[in-house]
Amino acid sequence: MKVLVLGGDGFCGWPTSLHLSDLGHDVTIVDNLSRREIDLELEVESLTPIRPIGERLRVWKQLTGKEITFVHLDLAEEYDRLEALLLEVRPDAIVHFGEQRAAPYSMRNSVAKRYTVDNNVRATHNVLVAIATSGLDIALVHLGTMGVYGYGWSGSAPIPEGYLTVKVPTPDGDIEREILHPANPGSVYHMTKTLDQLLFAFYCANDQLRITDLHQGIVWGTQTPQTVLDERLINRFDYDGDYGTVLNRFLMQAAIGHPLTVHGTGGQTRAFIHIRDTVRCIQIALENPPERGEKVKVFNQVTETHRLRELAEMISKFTGVDIAYLPNPRREAAENELNVSREQFLALGLNPTKLSEGLLEEARDIAMRYKDRADTTKIIARSTWRAGMETSPDLVKG
Amino acid sequence: MKVLVLGGDGFCGWPTSLHLSDLGHDVTIVDNLSRREIDLELEVESLTPIRPIGERLRVWKQLTGKEITFVHLDLAEEYDRLEALLLEVRPDAIVHFGEQRAAPYSMRNSVAKRYTVDNNVRATHNVLVAIATSGLDIALVHLGTMGVYGYGWSGSAPIPEGYLTVKVPTPDGDIEREILHPANPGSVYHMTKTLDQLLFAFYCANDQLRITDLHQGIVWGTQTPQTVLDERLINRFDYDGDYGTVLNRFLMQAAIGHPLTVHGTGGQTRAFIHIRDTVRCIQIALENPPERGEKVKVFNQVTETHRLRELAEMISKFTGVDIAYLPNPRREAAENELNVSREQFLALGLNPTKLSEGLLEEARDIAMRYKDRADTTKIIARSTWRAGMETSPDLVKG
Repeated sequence: MKVLVLGGDGFCGWPTSLHLSDLGHDVTIVDNLSRREIDLELEVESLTPIRPIGERLRVWKQLTGKEITFVHLDLAEEYDRLEALLLEVRPDAIVHFGEQRAAPYSMRNSVAKRYTVDNNVRATHNVLVAIATSGLDIALVHLGTMGVYGYGWSGSAPIPEGYLTVKVPTPDGDIEREILHPANPGSVYHMTKTLDQLLFAFYCANDQLRITDLHQGIVWGTQTPQTVLDERLINRFDYDGDYGTVLNRFLMQAAIGHPLTVHGTGGQTRAFIHIRDTVRCIQIALENPPERGEKVKVFNQVTETHRLRELAEMISKFTGVDIAYLPNPRREAAENELNVSREQFLALGLNPTKLSEGLLEEARDIAMRYKDRADTTKIIARSTWRAGMETSPDLVKG
Repeated sequence: MKVLVLGGDGFCGWPTSLHLSDLGHDVTIVDNLSRREIDLELEVESLTPIRPIGERLRVWKQLTGKEITFVHLDLAEEYDRLEALLLEVRPDAIVHFGEQRAAPYSMRNSVAKRYTVDNNVRATHNVLVAIATSGLDIALVHLGTMGVYGYGWSGSAPIPEGYLTVKVPTPDGDIEREILHPANPGSVYHMTKTLDQLLFAFYCANDQLRITDLHQGIVWGTQTPQTVLDERLINRFDYDGDYGTVLNRFLMQAAIGHPLTVHGTGGQTRAFIHIRDTVRCIQIALENPPERGEKVKVFNQVTETHRLRELAEMISKFTGVDIAYLPNPRREAAENELNVSREQFLALGLNPTKLSEGLLEEARDIAMRYKDRADTTKIIARSTWRAGMETSPDLVKG
């Protein structure tokens, strides 16, 4: 299969590109390297040392004989080149990771809010217009987020996979209607994924595009069977307050002896998935696209749920590092339950990688190996959801 | 009250600006003149002759002594100037018409699709970010569209004003939830207004902005008590296949003896409002903003509903001009019923202007007066919803 991976240089895109290439697919990475540029802006780097994309691809070819092409292209700004690329490559499928993906960054200031909306909405819309205009039958797989649903909206009912059947009162009695689960985004970033959903629904209905939207939980872990082959293939490990994801942050903090940073009560329950399962889920989604004329296919891409406080306690016990309860820079419920439907990926053969399976140790080992690269002044989360919200000072000396 | 009217040079924005100025408000028009630029692109002009904005404002001042300021600014592209303008003017309210508003134009080609999304989403988001960043307490009134709801979705239940209470099944029995009416947009243009709704919901929840969204029906008529004062103040009258609205098109076609162009069966039922009521509704919305912390206030800005076929038959009878049934370039239901809730504006004192009240004749008189300006090659609607859909040739010689 010919596959374009949009955002193939990022945290999920890179291991997905290698996984699909390893399976024998003909992979082209399309990326504007914006994630590396934001590192420059934030004056922080991945804990793991990331090589230039050209070097990454040379090493992959040397090790495996498999070629991945790279196209430096901005999806939001260079529509004409994108349209020409589709006609040149004629891909069977596109995997779309090409969006700004950090909630705290998206709330950082007016520039970051606007960048997140402008980039994400235009990138997604440009991809849809380019597919429709090309006349090619290209299946699209998009990375959504569990954050489109919000937390606690549907009471004791599990969060469904995309669609919810509700009863609408009418003068002739209740009628049943299947609706897209109402949007309850908690940040500008999450909001952009709720906008994407409406773009998908329209282009699916009007142009009969074949689209899959994957509502992913919080990713943890770093390495996949491909990225471990050579240090120059290593995946990103973000630990800073904007881009670091909570579990990886705890593991890194434990590795350098920094208190584990819990914001608010830690009563937030969130959904998780290991990066190894992310790449398998993408593969499964690519192998099971919707038919032409079918509605947008939605999967919940999560394998387990945890309360943040309990995760922190587990890692504290595992490593002996203390927990620090800090002011929460986000506007969110202090405590929530979370019950997520995830039958589809399991039915299609996903064998989930759980926290219990020793990979916590692998992630800790990576954090230990590269701990000298850490900048402790970047650990505290300081992008606040509203002006004037309290944030914590640094907990250790920089 | 200090009011910014974004898009104040357009078909709804111009008479609204004059109405608000006439009421004694301090009005600043912000516009990038894009509607005039699209006229150049489409090689068509308003049937009524539109003077440059500077001349319009000079005449208004000469006649009434009231000053309206004009700022040439692109909301989507010039965020920094917008933010500075808010801090300089410190408006009490913003009326936001600053979006590409034609469904057929939004489906015309990939450039127009992308312009509509890029312009409308970024303009709206920039306005929200600028208000939030300014720290000023500015109420926002936005022109939405009835098209966010779609047609026929809720069976025999009337379309509510924005929000719908549904029953969600849970293991503990049904629970009631109030949701934003599910989005069922019929074009890229209408889709952008469904995206706007999600932007409003988020900035209302996160930043407590005070926002009113007006889901307007199809506007007919041309003149208001202010625009009739001098020919140089006259409002737009669009008759072309992209920007012309159906009732004004029929009236113009009747005036020049062109068959009335009904696309499809004419069984589509749509909601209507006269431009005189548009400006009154904006006034009422400005006088009744939501409180800080309240959810987005949604009004249905419509005064009556009609089946297009019946409108055409009425005007055919009134004028003796034949009806031509043409292929429909849109993807939409051939026939639909439409039952719209519209209690709020009536309760707040709107006294609707109905088709029956002699204003059809006024509109026809305008069409007659300027019929020599008509280009009959621009009448047929030729922007198709999908490539390859059939359109009609010209019905009269150009």
